[in-house]
Amino acid sequence: MYNIFNKVNSFKDIKSLDYNELDLLSMEIRKFLIENISKTGGHLASNLGVVELTLSLYRVFDLDYDKVIWDVSHQAYVHKILTGRKDKFPTLRQHQGLSGFLKRSESKYDFFEAGHSSTSISAGIGMARARDINKEKFNVVSIIGDGALSGGMAFEALNDVGFRKTKMIIILNDNEMSISKNVGSMSNILNDLRVNPNYNKIKRKVKSSIGKIPHVGKKISDSIVNVKSAVKQVVLPDMIFEDMGLHYFGPIDGHNIKHLEEILEDAKKLDGPVLIHVITKKGKGYKPAENNPDKFHGIGKFDVVTGETLKKTSPTYSAAVGDALIDIAKEDEKVVAITAAMPKGTGLGEFSTKFEDRFFDVGIAEQHATTMAAGMASEGLKPFFAVYSTFLQRAFDQILHDICLQNLPVVLGIDRAGIVGDDGETHQGVFDISYLTQIPNITVIAPKKIGEMNKILRWAFNHNGPVAIRYPRGGDYDRINEIDDIDVIKEGKWEIIKEGTDVAIISNGKLISKVLEAWEILKKNGINASVINGIFIKPIDNMLLDELKDKFKVIVTIEDNVLRGGFGESVLSYLNKTDSNSKILNLGFPDEFIEHGNVEILYEKYNLHGQGIVDSIERVLR
Amino acid sequence: MYNIFNKVNSFKDIKSLDYNELDLLSMEIRKFLIENISKTGGHLASNLGVVELTLSLYRVFDLDYDKVIWDVSHQAYVHKILTGRKDKFPTLRQHQGLSGFLKRSESKYDFFEAGHSSTSISAGIGMARARDINKEKFNVVSIIGDGALSGGMAFEALNDVGFRKTKMIIILNDNEMSISKNVGSMSNILNDLRVNPNYNKIKRKVKSSIGKIPHVGKKISDSIVNVKSAVKQVVLPDMIFEDMGLHYFGPIDGHNIKHLEEILEDAKKLDGPVLIHVITKKGKGYKPAENNPDKFHGIGKFDVVTGETLKKTSPTYSAAVGDALIDIAKEDEKVVAITAAMPKGTGLGEFSTKFEDRFFDVGIAEQHATTMAAGMASEGLKPFFAVYSTFLQRAFDQILHDICLQNLPVVLGIDRAGIVGDDGETHQGVFDISYLTQIPNITVIAPKKIGEMNKILRWAFNHNGPVAIRYPRGGDYDRINEIDDIDVIKEGKWEIIKEGTDVAIISNGKLISKVLEAWEILKKNGINASVINGIFIKPIDNMLLDELKDKFKVIVTIEDNVLRGGFGESVLSYLNKTDSNSKILNLGFPDEFIEHGNVEILYEKYNLHGQGIVDSIERVLR
Repeated sequence: MYNIFNKVNSFKDIKSLDYNELDLLSMEIRKFLIENISKTGGHLASNLGVVELTLSLYRVFDLDYDKVIWDVSHQAYVHKILTGRKDKFPTLRQHQGLSGFLKRSESKYDFFEAGHSSTSISAGIGMARARDINKEKFNVVSIIGDGALSGGMAFEALNDVGFRKTKMIIILNDNEMSISKNVGSMSNILNDLRVNPNYNKIKRKVKSSIGKIPHVGKKISDSIVNVKSAVKQVVLPDMIFEDMGLHYFGPIDGHNIKHLEEILEDAKKLDGPVLIHVITKKGKGYKPAENNPDKFHGIGKFDVVTGETLKKTSPTYSAAVGDALIDIAKEDEKVVAITAAMPKGTGLGEFSTKFEDRFFDVGIAEQHATTMAAGMASEGLKPFFAVYSTFLQRAFDQILHDICLQNLPVVLGIDRAGIVGDDGETHQGVFDISYLTQIPNITVIAPKKIGEMNKILRWAFNHNGPVAIRYPRGGDYDRINEIDDIDVIKEGKWEIIKEGTDVAIISNGKLISKVLEAWEILKKNGINASVINGIFIKPIDNMLLDELKDKFKVIVTIEDNVLRGGFGESVLSYLNKTDSNSKILNLGFPDEFIEHGNVEILYEKYNLHGQGIVDSIERVLR
Repeated sequence: MYNIFNKVNSFKDIKSLDYNELDLLSMEIRKFLIENISKTGGHLASNLGVVELTLSLYRVFDLDYDKVIWDVSHQAYVHKILTGRKDKFPTLRQHQGLSGFLKRSESKYDFFEAGHSSTSISAGIGMARARDINKEKFNVVSIIGDGALSGGMAFEALNDVGFRKTKMIIILNDNEMSISKNVGSMSNILNDLRVNPNYNKIKRKVKSSIGKIPHVGKKISDSIVNVKSAVKQVVLPDMIFEDMGLHYFGPIDGHNIKHLEEILEDAKKLDGPVLIHVITKKGKGYKPAENNPDKFHGIGKFDVVTGETLKKTSPTYSAAVGDALIDIAKEDEKVVAITAAMPKGTGLGEFSTKFEDRFFDVGIAEQHATTMAAGMASEGLKPFFAVYSTFLQRAFDQILHDICLQNLPVVLGIDRAGIVGDDGETHQGVFDISYLTQIPNITVIAPKKIGEMNKILRWAFNHNGPVAIRYPRGGDYDRINEIDDIDVIKEGKWEIIKEGTDVAIISNGKLISKVLEAWEILKKNGINASVINGIFIKPIDNMLLDELKDKFKVIVTIEDNVLRGGFGESVLSYLNKTDSNSKILNLGFPDEFIEHGNVEILYEKYNLHGQGIVDSIERVLR
C-alpha cells in the first residue's frame, strides 16, 4: 500500500528515485495525508497541492545546506514527512503533538516559523543577505502563495529584492486561491500569465519560443491598443515581475516533477532574484478537496469516502455575527462589511451574496482594510471589518493612526479572540485586549453568549466612535444558557450575574462560563461569590468598581488574554488610584507564547478552568 | 510684494485667476512659505514642490463637494493657505497653534488626517465606495508620493482598487525622494517612466502620440530582447499600473498648471481608477532646498539667505547610536544596520557609507524591515533596525510573530520614543512601552543619557534574544551629566541613583532628568527621595522591588508613555502580587492623543516636569 512511502523518511531518501517512483510516491503521500488528516483534522487542500513541488525542491536543493522557507507554513506537511516526522502525524495539532505549522524546536530543517501570511520573501531576503555577508554559498528558496502576494509586506520585499538584486529564488505557488477565491488586480495579472499560450512550454528560452509566434511585428504596427493587448498576451506577460527586477520563469506545471526540476536547476545558476511561477491545484488528487478547496483548507475530522465532516456543527460566534449583520443591514443601508480574504471563516459568506455591493473582500490586506474602513466611516457609512484577532495585529498602526486618532465609527469584529487551540502559537488571539485598550478613543466590548451578538452589534453601530467586539472561535458552552442575555447595554456599564458576599469575580466573553463553573464549586465549598460580566473591557465600570472595593476583600479578574497590558491590569490600575484595600487577583495568560492543543487542555494547563479558578481564589482567601 | 497672495484666502479665490496670475501666486506662496517656515521651522521642501499641483487641483475640483486626501499630509501647507488658515502660519507647530499636519478639527476641508505614510489611497477608496453606496457623485482624489508607494499598504490598496474598478483619481507625486533618496525597484520603474521620450508630451492620446514613433514595428520583430527594452522604453512604460487595472496618465510636469488642469479635467470624466503620474521638484523655487531637499524636508528655524539652520546642533541620541554602531561594527563583522527610508533621521548616514554592504535601506517598509531582520538573525547576523517609535507601530505583528515568537536576536533601535513635540498626535512615541512589553521574549531597555548608548548597544548585541532600546528625540538635559553612566548592565537589574527614605521614584530614559529636578525640589521641601533608574523596562527588577516595598510607603513610577499597558502598570502588577502595602503612584500620559507643541510645554501640561512630579508625590504623601 505504501511501497515507496515506507522507505522514505528523509529528503535524502528521494534523491535516487526515478520519475515513475516519484509519481507513485506522490500518490502515496496524498493517500497518507488524506488518511491522517481525516482522523486528526488539519490543513489538507494546501498540502495536497504542493506534493510534487516539495519533492522537486528537496531533490534539487540540499536541506543540510540550502534554506527553504514556507510562507504561512500550513502547506508544510509534505516537508514534515520528508524531514523525519511522518510517524508523528497521528498527533497532529494535538497538545504536545506535531504542530500544524513549522516550528524550529521540532526540526532543524524548519528554518523559519510562520502562521501569518506574506512573510517568507522578507525572511528569505534576510537569510540571503546574511549568507552574502558571511561569505557562504547556500541557496535560499522562499515559497509564497498567490493569495499571500496581496499582503503588502510581500510587495515591500519584492520591491527591495529586485532593487538590490539579492540572489534568491521565490516560488510563486499559484493555485488561484488564498483560503477563498482570490481577489485583487494581481490575481488578474496572474490569470493573464496562466492563460498565455506559453503555459506549459517552460518559457526558459524566451527568445526562441517567442520568436516562433507569427506576425507579432506586423500586429504591433497596427494600433497601440492592439499592440498592448498583443504584447501583453503573447510577448510580455511576465513584465510586472521583470519590471520589479526579478528574473521570471513560468508559468510551470507544479505537478510535473521533471519540469520543475529543470527550472529549479536553471534558476539556481542565475545571479540575482528569480521568481518561478508555479501552477498547482489546491486539493489535488482528492476529488472532494479539488471541488471544495475552501472547505478542505483547514478541516476537522472527515469521512474519506464522502468528504463529509464528522463533527456536527453547532452555532458559532462567526455565524451569529453574519446573521446579525444581515439582519441589521436590511434595515440600515449604511452598514457594509469588509473581510481580508476570509469571507467564510468570519461568517460573512451569506452577507457577501445578499449584499454584494456592500461587501468588500480586499484580499490578505488587513492594513488596507482598516484604513479603507476609516475612509468609509468618514463619509457616513457604518463599516464592519470582521477579522481574526491574531491577524488584526497587522493593522495595529492603522487602528491607532487612521481609526482612533480621528475617532471614526468603525466596528471591528474581532473573531478568534482568546486562545484558539489547535493552530497554536501563531494564531492565539491573546494579545488584542492589550494592543487595543492602550489606544485612546476605542471601546472594547465582548458578548458573554452568542445570543447577545445582535444586540451588541446594534449598540456598536449606534456608538459614535471606534468599537471592537471580541468573540471566540467556535460557540458557547451549554452552561451559559442558564444565564439570561444582557438586558440593557450602556457604555462602560457591567452586568451583575450573581450576587455574593465573599469574593467578586469579574470576567468577560467566553470565560464567563468558566467562572460560572467556578462559582458552583466555590458555593459547594462554602464560598459565596459575586460574578460580574465585565462586558465593557474598555472603558471599565469605575462606578461599579467603587462599590465592589468597599464590599469585597478580594476582587478577581479573569481574562482570555495575556496579563501584561490586559483587562486585569486595567482594573488594578483603577483600584490602585482609589483608597481600596481589597486584594486584587488578576488571572489570565502569563508572559509566554501559548502552544497548540485543545482549548480545554490549555485552559486547564493555565488554571483558567473552573477548578483552576477556584484554586487560585481559595489560595488568596486563605 | 504679496499682490495676488493677499487677495487669496480660499480655494474659491483662485478659480478666476489667469495663468499669469497663477504663476505669480505660486511665486508668492513660495515666498510666504519660506519666510514663515524660516521663523517657525516645519516641512518646507515637500510643500514647495506641490504649489502648482495644489492650485491646479483646487481649481479643477470643488472642495465643498469633492474630497482631496493628502498622504502623510506634511505637504499640505498650500492646502492650509487655500482653506483660510494663512494667518495662522506664525503659530505653525506650536502648542495651540496651527498643526503641521491635516487635522479635522482645524478645517472641514481636512478630510482625512495622516502623519504616517501610504494611507491616502486606502482612505480614498473608502470614501469613493461610501459615495457609490450613498449614491452621491463627488470626486475623490488621493495624492501619494513616490516614496510612500513603497509602503505595502499602498500596494494593497492599488491591488484592490484596480480589481474592483472604483472610480477615483490617484495623483502619484513623484519627486524621486521620500525623505532621503528613494530605493526599491518601484523607484526604478518610475525612473523608466520619467526618462521615456513622451515625458511632457502629456500622453493622453496614447494612440496618436505613440503612432508617430518611427520603426517601433520593425524593431520589435528583431529579437525579443530588443523588443522588451524597446517596448518598455517607448511604448509601454505605464504597463505596471495598467496591469493593475488603473488608467495611467503621465508623466506630467507638476509645475505646469495648465497641463495639470487639462489632465485632471480628462481624468475626472473617466470611470474607474486613474493614476496620474506627476513629476515635481522637491524644494522647488528655493535653491538651498532644491540642492538639499533632505535637510529641508523637516527643518528648524533657518536663515533665508544662506539656508543655514539657526539653532546650534547639540549631540543627539540618534547621532550617538550611529557612532556607537560604527564603533561596534568595526570589531564585529556580524553587525548590520537597517532603516526604513530614514538613514539620516536615525543617525545612520555615516554608517551607510562606511559599511555600504552591511547597510540596508528598504524604503518605507517597516514590516519587511522587521521580518528581514528576523531572517538575518536566524542566520547569525546581528541586525540593528533603527526606526521611530511611532512608525514601528506598523510592524507590531512582525515583531511579535517573526522576531519574538522565534526569540531571534534582533536589536530594535526605537528612536523618537516618548513625546516628540511639534509633530504632534501622529508622531508621539508614547505607545511603544505598551505594545512591546506585552510581547513575550522581548527585552526593553532605555539609556538615561547619551553616554550610555555604546554600552547598552554592546549589551544588546550580546543578548541572545530580541532587544528594543528606546531613546528620545534630540539630546540630553544638562542635569543628567551630574550623574554617572551606569556601571554594569545586567538583565533586569535597575540602578539606584539616589538613596532616600521617604519615597522611591522609579523612571527611565529622558525622564530621569525630570525626576532629578523633582528630587531637588522635594529635598528643599524636606522630603528625602530615592531615585531609581528603571533601565530595564522589561523585565522589571523584581528583587529590587521586593526591597523597595518593605522600605517605602510610597513608590512612584514615571514614564514617557501612556499609562495604559505601560511601565507603571507593570510595576504595579508585580507589587500587587506581593504582600506590599506601599502606595503605588503611576505617572505618565493619560488615555488620550497628545497634541503638538513644545516638549517642555507638554511635560508641564501633563505634570511630568519637576514641579509636576513633586506636586503629584506630595499629594500622595499627605
